[in-house]
Amino acid sequence: MIRIGIAGYGNLGRGVEAAIRQNTDMELAAVFTRRNPGDVKLKTERVPVYHTDKAKDMTKDIDVMILCGGSATDLPVQGPQFAAMFNTVDSFDTHAKIPEYFAAVDAAAKQAGKTAAISIGWDPGLFSLNRAYAQSILPHGSSYTFWGKGVSQGHSDAIRRISGVKHAVQYTVPIDEAIEKVRNFTHPKLSIKEKHLRQCFVVAEKEADCERIEKEIKQMPNYFADYDTEVRFVSEEVFHAEHSAMPHGGFVMRSGKTGLDEETNQMMEFSLKLESNPEFTASVLVAYARAVYKLSKEGRTGAKTVLDIAPGDLSDRTPEALREQLL
Amino acid sequence: MIRIGIAGYGNLGRGVEAAIRQNTDMELAAVFTRRNPGDVKLKTERVPVYHTDKAKDMTKDIDVMILCGGSATDLPVQGPQFAAMFNTVDSFDTHAKIPEYFAAVDAAAKQAGKTAAISIGWDPGLFSLNRAYAQSILPHGSSYTFWGKGVSQGHSDAIRRISGVKHAVQYTVPIDEAIEKVRNFTHPKLSIKEKHLRQCFVVAEKEADCERIEKEIKQMPNYFADYDTEVRFVSEEVFHAEHSAMPHGGFVMRSGKTGLDEETNQMMEFSLKLESNPEFTASVLVAYARAVYKLSKEGRTGAKTVLDIAPGDLSDRTPEALREQLL
Repeated sequence: MIRIGIAGYGNLGRGVEAAIRQNTDMELAAVFTRRNPGDVKLKTERVPVYHTDKAKDMTKDIDVMILCGGSATDLPVQGPQFAAMFNTVDSFDTHAKIPEYFAAVDAAAKQAGKTAAISIGWDPGLFSLNRAYAQSILPHGSSYTFWGKGVSQGHSDAIRRISGVKHAVQYTVPIDEAIEKVRNFTHPKLSIKEKHLRQCFVVAEKEADCERIEKEIKQMPNYFADYDTEVRFVSEEVFHAEHSAMPHGGFVMRSGKTGLDEETNQMMEFSLKLESNPEFTASVLVAYARAVYKLSKEGRTGAKTVLDIAPGDLSDRTPEALREQLL
Repeated sequence: MIRIGIAGYGNLGRGVEAAIRQNTDMELAAVFTRRNPGDVKLKTERVPVYHTDKAKDMTKDIDVMILCGGSATDLPVQGPQFAAMFNTVDSFDTHAKIPEYFAAVDAAAKQAGKTAAISIGWDPGLFSLNRAYAQSILPHGSSYTFWGKGVSQGHSDAIRRISGVKHAVQYTVPIDEAIEKVRNFTHPKLSIKEKHLRQCFVVAEKEADCERIEKEIKQMPNYFADYDTEVRFVSEEVFHAEHSAMPHGGFVMRSGKTGLDEETNQMMEFSLKLESNPEFTASVLVAYARAVYKLSKEGRTGAKTVLDIAPGDLSDRTPEALREQLL
């Protein structure tokens, strides 16, 4: 059994806990939190909860630690810190800072003889590796990524900062016509407005001026001004009933040309349709925890990304079984 | 420059020749044929054509040999033979014989210190690795593969064996309603008839009995009897104008459940839409030739499949550039 630790017990940590149960070669060994451990109630019986400070005493009890903190402030500190003690997996997703983060985790992991998979999830993650396959196989062509339909936390937060807004959620919605243009091999140049529209569901405070709120949303620079934006006001009841899930997904497409005259069209497409973004991301983290465990056994230390890890390493089956069943 | 050899110059070999031109880190070093080399005219200037028997004298001139023979009789012999002399890539696709073929190539390659990527292409190949990712990430769920719209050589051949048939092509067509059912998370049990239909375009000999031909096609056991089959008779002109391309493609889908109660639906889907099956397969072979070259430099010898090779190994970019540009 691969003994998994979870560091951070929010939406993602709870998703990891659930995902571990679906994998018969793994067990949840412990959860680490910066809260008072007594306040954290797990869904799994007989698994201890410790304060994060206790992790350093448990390096022999955990095979892979899954870091479920946020990319803004948690992981830049925790990533290198934990990689110096444990094999780790994390979902660091601040794109511009990945090279710097990779270097810090790589140095810590290599020095400790540990393996650390960083930036695991779906974007960065599965979308990235599909881009790598597609661009390597079809070097001449056009690449597209569409996101959604899904909740953007950043845009939802931006709406919530407007005066008179009580609750708000923003869905990024890919525009079907644009996806169809790509599928039809037209290699379109798409403006940001042509790729996605923004749907906002808002609960206004009593007596707030809804017209003003809608106008402020639609004119907000960077977030909404460059898009077609729909704003709907809903009651608090409807909001909680219909808009508390965290769906997401998207499409990674490569439209390439092959042949001597490059006149043959070839399309590769990968897509996700997710009812819960954190639960799916958690499932990806857990599969990569298995890969990290294997790489560690092989002595392959340091930081790794989805681009460095072979598909078969994610599986609990033997190479022989995989060849027989999946090839 | 990675020096590539091509063994076998049919549709696939010509596709490999074209694909090499799209990759700036590769060059076509030589083509090997069992025909009279003087009869083979390449599209690339100043590249020599040799008889296959000459390959053994050129082990220092070729970094990776791409084997473009067929799976029925060529590769079972050539695979182990060439892997004893060169790093190789092949598209062996006789599913039931893959374990046996892997063992033979693995033994030959390991003894010679060579690296051999077997069963490369899209199915087996890209479809296989997508199954591996999807089943590892979503262990509880249902997997589906749909093929087409595309030409099935086996079915086309079967029609051509009917008396009175001059030319024939058979397209396997995935049924949209079935794909939509999967996408809608209904986890359908689909009979073979519900997944694909078979479209046949036939040129009949003069005075042949078309009704009899149609009936013979539709009643043919294994090939057509269990499917909805459409038969259309066309003129020789229409046949050559509209049915000489080799399109193909398909869909690999995984509908999974996550969460503590396994009530959350998650969908992963990979699809291909190909105007030329051999040209696309060739492009996959060439990208994996680069991976084989890298693995060989790292001393990772023996037989490998798509499941053993990391996505980044297919790319001509450095790991640093890939992390910056694709993650």
